[in-house]
Amino acid sequence: MNTFGKLFTITTFGESHGLGVGVVVDGCPAGLKITEADIQKELNRRKPGQSSITTSRKEDDKIRIMSGVTDGKTTGAPIMMLAENRDARSEDYGQLKEVYRPGHADFTYEAKYGHREWRGGGRASARTTLAQVAAGAIAKKYLKEKLNVEILGFVDQVGEIKAAIDYNKLSLKKVEANPVRCPDEKIAKEMIKFITALKSGGDSTGGAVFAIIKNVPLGLGSPVFDKLPADLAKAMMGINAAKGFEIGSGFRAAEMRGSEHNDRFYTTKGKVRTKTNFAGGVLGGISTGEDIYFRVAFKPTSTIAKAQDTIDRRGKQVVLKAAGRHDPCIVPRAVPIVEAMAALVIMDHYLQWKAYK
Amino acid sequence: MNTFGKLFTITTFGESHGLGVGVVVDGCPAGLKITEADIQKELNRRKPGQSSITTSRKEDDKIRIMSGVTDGKTTGAPIMMLAENRDARSEDYGQLKEVYRPGHADFTYEAKYGHREWRGGGRASARTTLAQVAAGAIAKKYLKEKLNVEILGFVDQVGEIKAAIDYNKLSLKKVEANPVRCPDEKIAKEMIKFITALKSGGDSTGGAVFAIIKNVPLGLGSPVFDKLPADLAKAMMGINAAKGFEIGSGFRAAEMRGSEHNDRFYTTKGKVRTKTNFAGGVLGGISTGEDIYFRVAFKPTSTIAKAQDTIDRRGKQVVLKAAGRHDPCIVPRAVPIVEAMAALVIMDHYLQWKAYK
Amino acid sequence: MNTFGKLFTITTFGESHGLGVGVVVDGCPAGLKITEADIQKELNRRKPGQSSITTSRKEDDKIRIMSGVTDGKTTGAPIMMLAENRDARSEDYGQLKEVYRPGHADFTYEAKYGHREWRGGGRASARTTLAQVAAGAIAKKYLKEKLNVEILGFVDQVGEIKAAIDYNKLSLKKVEANPVRCPDEKIAKEMIKFITALKSGGDSTGGAVFAIIKNVPLGLGSPVFDKLPADLAKAMMGINAAKGFEIGSGFRAAEMRGSEHNDRFYTTKGKVRTKTNFAGGVLGGISTGEDIYFRVAFKPTSTIAKAQDTIDRRGKQVVLKAAGRHDPCIVPRAVPIVEAMAALVIMDHYLQWKAYK
Amino acid sequence: MNTFGKLFTITTFGESHGLGVGVVVDGCPAGLKITEADIQKELNRRKPGQSSITTSRKEDDKIRIMSGVTDGKTTGAPIMMLAENRDARSEDYGQLKEVYRPGHADFTYEAKYGHREWRGGGRASARTTLAQVAAGAIAKKYLKEKLNVEILGFVDQVGEIKAAIDYNKLSLKKVEANPVRCPDEKIAKEMIKFITALKSGGDSTGGAVFAIIKNVPLGLGSPVFDKLPADLAKAMMGINAAKGFEIGSGFRAAEMRGSEHNDRFYTTKGKVRTKTNFAGGVLGGISTGEDIYFRVAFKPTSTIAKAQDTIDRRGKQVVLKAAGRHDPCIVPRAVPIVEAMAALVIMDHYLQWKAYK
Repeated sequence: MNTFGKLFTITTFGESHGLGVGVVVDGCPAGLKITEADIQKELNRRKPGQSSITTSRKEDDKIRIMSGVTDGKTTGAPIMMLAENRDARSEDYGQLKEVYRPGHADFTYEAKYGHREWRGGGRASARTTLAQVAAGAIAKKYLKEKLNVEILGFVDQVGEIKAAIDYNKLSLKKVEANPVRCPDEKIAKEMIKFITALKSGGDSTGGAVFAIIKNVPLGLGSPVFDKLPADLAKAMMGINAAKGFEIGSGFRAAEMRGSEHNDRFYTTKGKVRTKTNFAGGVLGGISTGEDIYFRVAFKPTSTIAKAQDTIDRRGKQVVLKAAGRHDPCIVPRAVPIVEAMAALVIMDHYLQWKAYK
Repeated sequence: MNTFGKLFTITTFGESHGLGVGVVVDGCPAGLKITEADIQKELNRRKPGQSSITTSRKEDDKIRIMSGVTDGKTTGAPIMMLAENRDARSEDYGQLKEVYRPGHADFTYEAKYGHREWRGGGRASARTTLAQVAAGAIAKKYLKEKLNVEILGFVDQVGEIKAAIDYNKLSLKKVEANPVRCPDEKIAKEMIKFITALKSGGDSTGGAVFAIIKNVPLGLGSPVFDKLPADLAKAMMGINAAKGFEIGSGFRAAEMRGSEHNDRFYTTKGKVRTKTNFAGGVLGGISTGEDIYFRVAFKPTSTIAKAQDTIDRRGKQVVLKAAGRHDPCIVPRAVPIVEAMAALVIMDHYLQWKAYK
Repeated sequence: MNTFGKLFTITTFGESHGLGVGVVVDGCPAGLKITEADIQKELNRRKPGQSSITTSRKEDDKIRIMSGVTDGKTTGAPIMMLAENRDARSEDYGQLKEVYRPGHADFTYEAKYGHREWRGGGRASARTTLAQVAAGAIAKKYLKEKLNVEILGFVDQVGEIKAAIDYNKLSLKKVEANPVRCPDEKIAKEMIKFITALKSGGDSTGGAVFAIIKNVPLGLGSPVFDKLPADLAKAMMGINAAKGFEIGSGFRAAEMRGSEHNDRFYTTKGKVRTKTNFAGGVLGGISTGEDIYFRVAFKPTSTIAKAQDTIDRRGKQVVLKAAGRHDPCIVPRAVPIVEAMAALVIMDHYLQWKAYK
Repeated sequence: MNTFGKLFTITTFGESHGLGVGVVVDGCPAGLKITEADIQKELNRRKPGQSSITTSRKEDDKIRIMSGVTDGKTTGAPIMMLAENRDARSEDYGQLKEVYRPGHADFTYEAKYGHREWRGGGRASARTTLAQVAAGAIAKKYLKEKLNVEILGFVDQVGEIKAAIDYNKLSLKKVEANPVRCPDEKIAKEMIKFITALKSGGDSTGGAVFAIIKNVPLGLGSPVFDKLPADLAKAMMGINAAKGFEIGSGFRAAEMRGSEHNDRFYTTKGKVRTKTNFAGGVLGGISTGEDIYFRVAFKPTSTIAKAQDTIDRRGKQVVLKAAGRHDPCIVPRAVPIVEAMAALVIMDHYLQWKAYK
């Protein structure tokens, strides 16, 4: 289904080449001030064509709030936001109509639905993620205003180039200072250089996003199944191209000893804290009040300019020469999506926490 | 909440030191042959005290099917399975009543619920996972009988010791051939040696489980949010001590190029296949028919015998000397849990697929 | 929340005086032929201003399918349908801004959300039901084409005027033959006369809708909670102004004896039938294959022209003289809404039945 | 499915002739004092064999709280309650194994599940409602203690005998003063006489339950779909044998005029009230703070001693002479079930209200 969340739910709709893409946000408490500009700001971080290392394809991600907001405030009714598709003229898709593109969902969609949208990916298009970013912008604003929760992502890996960022010294400004969204300027330059080279060679690369959530109240999350890390994992692995998720110590935990991994409790200023934070801000699935941090790995963009062997719909072997414009590395544009989905998870668990407290 | 799944749902209940632990399985199609022995077989792989490298604590995981099965077959009504707690005598918990154990959920539970169960962890106890294994056993049997789906997990990492297993040569027998559940006999011995040493030193280690699902029908999974990898990630990250999840190429994908990662389609015996399987059996969130494989990282057991600094409930600094018996490495016992949760996800998506086909 | 259904879900949005009203339909199987004309046809039966006995207010219920349909067929992706609001100019609402209208939701909305939309009722406006009719049109078409299910409602009571219709002789044509949607022409004339008199006197009346569903497959519905009558009841009691629901013998059942009410089984043409159908087509919550029939009672329209005592927002006693145009009897326009909601319930249970069969 | 509720959920399990019947209650806030005696008290009002006008069959409805309660208080973990079946010896079911009993679910269950439990009705047995009563007892206690909500039902109709009760003069004591649970002693005697006569004649009768909920906080319920009356309707129509539901003016509303039905607002002691309460305590689906009252119609018990024409599983015409003991009128025992389901609905909406406030 196309709905995410239990108490703060989003239902997305739209395809790359239909009339529009959008979302219904249900369960937003009444009284939150929100404007289209608040939403647009986040969308602009996601949209294609924003820099030299993203696709040159321009899409108009202009959002309109169609319901649920009156006199600048949420009313408690569902908030529908719509971005109409304007660049929906068919590009030269020629060969694509008949071919299964490697790494794409053409094959599985056609098997599942008996047809597939070859014009731009249809429902599988990354364009659909703008709906998630728009919805997340509302959650983000609510969390910031009511609880001072801050959510920030950045690119910490592109191909084999890895950054080692102290997330306590981060700021949105630093992340946005370069097109690759890596707050280490030196590493960022390397990444950009690497991506630019790949682009001209017709290839693409994977990468990873690191995200941090500060000031999450103590006690969010459920002991079994709906653990905070479980819901974050689902949210992140639902993003196009995601292949891995880890929280706190993550895969490093497999190598560690208990005496090392157990974060020691202490008390300071009347508050319980831990000296280290290998847990990543959760114990038993429930937030501790420490920073929540996690990483998401993304595969390289499946659309590449290089020729590839594949088959067509009748099973015949063909060579695919991809037309169309693409991102050589999707990861910088994934940052606002990761932040948005994280905001949705925290928001939902916050409302659940209120219900039972 | 304590329910997992949409069409094949499980609702678990029970604590370590209450009267029992169990599960209601709802949505199992009528007519499946199932016996308590089918369930018990899986539970025995999870239960404590099964080998020299697990906790010496014995628990009686004896399961009874209380409803939903008549004359050896499921009826379509909810299946309740119950394992009564028999070893619920209070061990010497002395200090635990007042102390926040590092790495445990004592602190977050107490903050969330205003109390916590200090006798064995209460709802956070690993004992509760027997309910998931029991439920998974039903899904596993259904999938095997109707679709020939096979689900098999094994330990591929303990601390820094990693196995490199060709999962096409696996068998349940090989996995079960040693207590650490690593099918590489040589590596298994190293792992056991390492764990044994840690145990006598009062420490613990993390590790990882690798799992493979064969013969999943083409077309399971949903394009957005409820992608197969997203639901698998949620299921796995909901298991106690899980810190990371990756599917297919996983975190390695971040380092790869598109021309390398894109699995090439070809046709053989009238069936569409891919030459490589970096995707891990899913494209666009939907199963391709190729093997689905994934890894789950687990942190080291939080209960250790070594002394640790921590605080008590009043915030006073204390030294915790853990009493009680524990597993020096939880990962071998996590294998059947991983398999069970995977079975639940596949089963649910199979029923969803039937609804819409 | 604003979502209805489990496998065939609708999420509605929009207010009377925002930018538009619409719905996201999720879970529609791929391959169904559907056009805007199919939807519009049903909407036209609901829209205001359609006859002399409805409100003279004209609203433009022009629907657009924004997503989920390509080349005239559903794709399996969510179907968003939008009717923009065009007649959203503020009428003379003068006094309404400050007054709690008797029988309306002004008071409860303001208490719940801290504000209320006084311009036309906001989310409580009957205009929002067009979203349900649009969604129901899709379900209706699917059910008719795949299963020959027919759903037909009519007005069987207006005030104290009751019709006694043999529903086996019904047709859509007969129902639509007069503006009050009562297929007994003689009774219909009485009803129209009564409504017209009320209208000129500034008053309103209640009434009831009878609905029949033919050719529902045997076996839909769940034994506990999600019984077919339970889900129909929820659907109907969620319609604005509904006050009662009964299925089959309904409230008459309270007066009957078992020997009279028990429908006798017999076999004809290899099919199990019952001689009577007091059950209304369901036994144990599950469809028998006999006709499902039920009635829904609606209260009189709350908006009336007569002066009424009430209070304003500060609790001061005032006299409300309603401005604005209204329906003297909402029941004829409720018919397509009842049919739509019934279609949604049957569709959802049909998909559930497919999942488990 | 066998789960009811969104934030306060119950999942029931069990059949008449399996090992037991029970429920998992999930979402109960921590800290509520609850004992088995609190639950048993409600169950005793439902159990068979409690008086001369109920079935003479004795069932042991002895309940045990198996999880979720420690030291007499709820912990926030799921509460499992179990009543083992003790009187599960097979009575003389002889003919029933092969026959479709008129009015029963034998036929629909067999069609749906490919089998049916002929021993006592299986999952369709009224015995399963004890799970709902047990769960409702917890909700009732919580609502009474935290919000002073009072829920009381009584029998207001048996066959054609109707009581006219002023529900403001009700008390549990008066309701429980006679076995038919009608607080009008004179009418109660008539009802008992009527039922006794039917019993000896081997027949049964329908009836109706009236229920009142006092002190519901203002603002519970959702504007669309999940209206309080819609959720109450679903809950009530899910009870075995229910055929109709009405709230407030109910079916009488169809005959009323707007000028009569619109409850006038006034202010008293700083509180907004209405002079009449035709609305039944809800406007726009949301509670007004006035009393919520509703009625539920039940069909006559399907099991009767009189001979009935029917068919067997092969479609052959047979005469059924019902063996087994039965209630000549189920309505007195339905009272605690109606109360329990009402408590569950209010509880769930109260938690939802807390989430969004």
